[in-house]
Amino acid sequence: MRADLALVGFGHVGQRFARLIAEQADALRTSHEVEPRIVGIATRRHGSVYAEEGIDVERALADSAAGRPLEGPGGCPSAAEQLQRLGTASSPLRVLVETTTLAIEDGQPAIRHIEAAIDAGCHTVTANKGPVAFAYRRLRDRAAAAGVSFLFEGAVMDGVPVFNLVRETMPAITVRGFRGVVNSTTNHILTALENGDAFAPALARMQAEGIAEADASLDVDGWDAAAKAAALANVLMDAELTPHLVERTGIGPETAERARSALRRGSRLRLVASASRDDRGRVVATVRPEELPLEDLLSGLRGTANALILHTDLLGDVAIHQLGGGLTMTAYALLSDLIAIRRRQPLSSSG
Amino acid sequence: MRADLALVGFGHVGQRFARLIAEQADALRTSHEVEPRIVGIATRRHGSVYAEEGIDVERALADSAAGRPLEGPGGCPSAAEQLQRLGTASSPLRVLVETTTLAIEDGQPAIRHIEAAIDAGCHTVTANKGPVAFAYRRLRDRAAAAGVSFLFEGAVMDGVPVFNLVRETMPAITVRGFRGVVNSTTNHILTALENGDAFAPALARMQAEGIAEADASLDVDGWDAAAKAAALANVLMDAELTPHLVERTGIGPETAERARSALRRGSRLRLVASASRDDRGRVVATVRPEELPLEDLLSGLRGTANALILHTDLLGDVAIHQLGGGLTMTAYALLSDLIAIRRRQPLSSSG
Repeated sequence: MRADLALVGFGHVGQRFARLIAEQADALRTSHEVEPRIVGIATRRHGSVYAEEGIDVERALADSAAGRPLEGPGGCPSAAEQLQRLGTASSPLRVLVETTTLAIEDGQPAIRHIEAAIDAGCHTVTANKGPVAFAYRRLRDRAAAAGVSFLFEGAVMDGVPVFNLVRETMPAITVRGFRGVVNSTTNHILTALENGDAFAPALARMQAEGIAEADASLDVDGWDAAAKAAALANVLMDAELTPHLVERTGIGPETAERARSALRRGSRLRLVASASRDDRGRVVATVRPEELPLEDLLSGLRGTANALILHTDLLGDVAIHQLGGGLTMTAYALLSDLIAIRRRQPLSSSG
Repeated sequence: MRADLALVGFGHVGQRFARLIAEQADALRTSHEVEPRIVGIATRRHGSVYAEEGIDVERALADSAAGRPLEGPGGCPSAAEQLQRLGTASSPLRVLVETTTLAIEDGQPAIRHIEAAIDAGCHTVTANKGPVAFAYRRLRDRAAAAGVSFLFEGAVMDGVPVFNLVRETMPAITVRGFRGVVNSTTNHILTALENGDAFAPALARMQAEGIAEADASLDVDGWDAAAKAAALANVLMDAELTPHLVERTGIGPETAERARSALRRGSRLRLVASASRDDRGRVVATVRPEELPLEDLLSGLRGTANALILHTDLLGDVAIHQLGGGLTMTAYALLSDLIAIRRRQPLSSSG
């Protein structure tokens, strides 16, 4: 089954995704009966390209690598224009692949892109946590009313299944709460602080290695973890949080001494994102550094390892670990969502 | 959608399953559109009962609790007879719920029960590891040819998704190998040995607490872990192993000193089940006590906690943890498989 894709955002993740679907083309066609074709790429500052018959992906990747703006014979259509055109395509699967960066103020422009896709009758896969962190219920209901899918496995823990884990493999389970280490930069820094590093050089090294952003405040102030906590609570516990409603404490230079003294006591300081229900049944979510005893599964996480412990009714505590992170895994998350959308189509429509 | 169930085996797991579907009846009907009804129970030594219109489950549970044999107005039909009659039922879903105990020699009688179910046009859900450990490929192909499902999530790590995790949430992923701690009794004993206990009293306590069987050799000689390793390798890596083809070393009184000296070196002895491909592409599986450094995720497992690390191509290492075990979780595995079978039915057949 042909799947026409419009990529909105074409940074590291979008580019890795474009390569991954080329690398996996045979397996996708034979094992999953889906033949993805990129018909558009829209970026905010580096041009755009759209072609009904499929764009020249290799050229777009080369242009991006060389810092040249994208352009094609059809001009430079915006994301909104591309989604309108995608909606009229004859392909049985029309999919927005949303990978713009998170705006922690309001989750935009990703939410607008997804709304435009839904209204045009297109499915969405996104690795952006903004839409689920700020507007999950609204987007879910709007997508359901339009009969399209809205999937976002890459929003938390890259391609390691978290949302699909609960949705697909834990039917009839109630998630009562969760605890997790879900931000790699702060976990890396905390590991370095334990080893005697000071905060500023530890952060600088993360930035030099490309693990932390140049503007690291999203990570160290706990915003990234708060957005993930809101996303998890909204999807798994039916909450209506935003990152701004998550009680949030980040890490800073003063954390170094706390991390080392925790280690001296045989425990470890980790930035923990958690959620539970209060006495009135409301979901309360928190991000803060916590001193964890050695027996705590989260205390053993080093470097970029992430983990999430789900507190459930019938299965007790279940944890899933990502032991390494990286671009390929985030790109894979988008691919796994694309395959999930294919699986939801009637079997008879294959070919 | 009505689902008629024949329970073959009615020990602790089967009894807990019978209670669980009663407890979850509302959620099953409203959220999953399935209304299970137990029409038969067959046991080897404690009688059998079958009734097309559904048996009196409360009475069967009371009889079992009191040690009375099951009996009903229709005589005492064997498992084979029950599956034949189930095959002729008018219910749209006819399901064998197989929970007999593992025969480590050959995986029987469970394999025969499943073959009989398939041949009668019935689906199977089982918590028994024998069928997947001894005959996965044969049963999978026979079920596929008959158009019925054969699911077995409870065979490894109770209801924590392992098989469904890969099948449902990791499409296009290749599992290259795995390492895990998958036997609770030996992990419990190794934890006790580290704390200074001797082997025999540690084992006796596990037996007194109902964690270990009276005949503990399946656990301590590594057979249970070997059966799980074979099951995992057969399903996740397309191997054709049996428990007897797994290289196997158990634990015994001599293990105590090894566990304590590992702890003195800051590491821990754990019974690890693992598999990988050798140079010729053949799957090789092993069960043996291994000394693991503290950083190893498996070294931190205490008591009945289990964990499995999957080595994958696109997602690197992914681990899933079961932080507590128990009957409810094994019973839930059967329930989640039942819901998976319901989900595979055409949506229009609901009601």
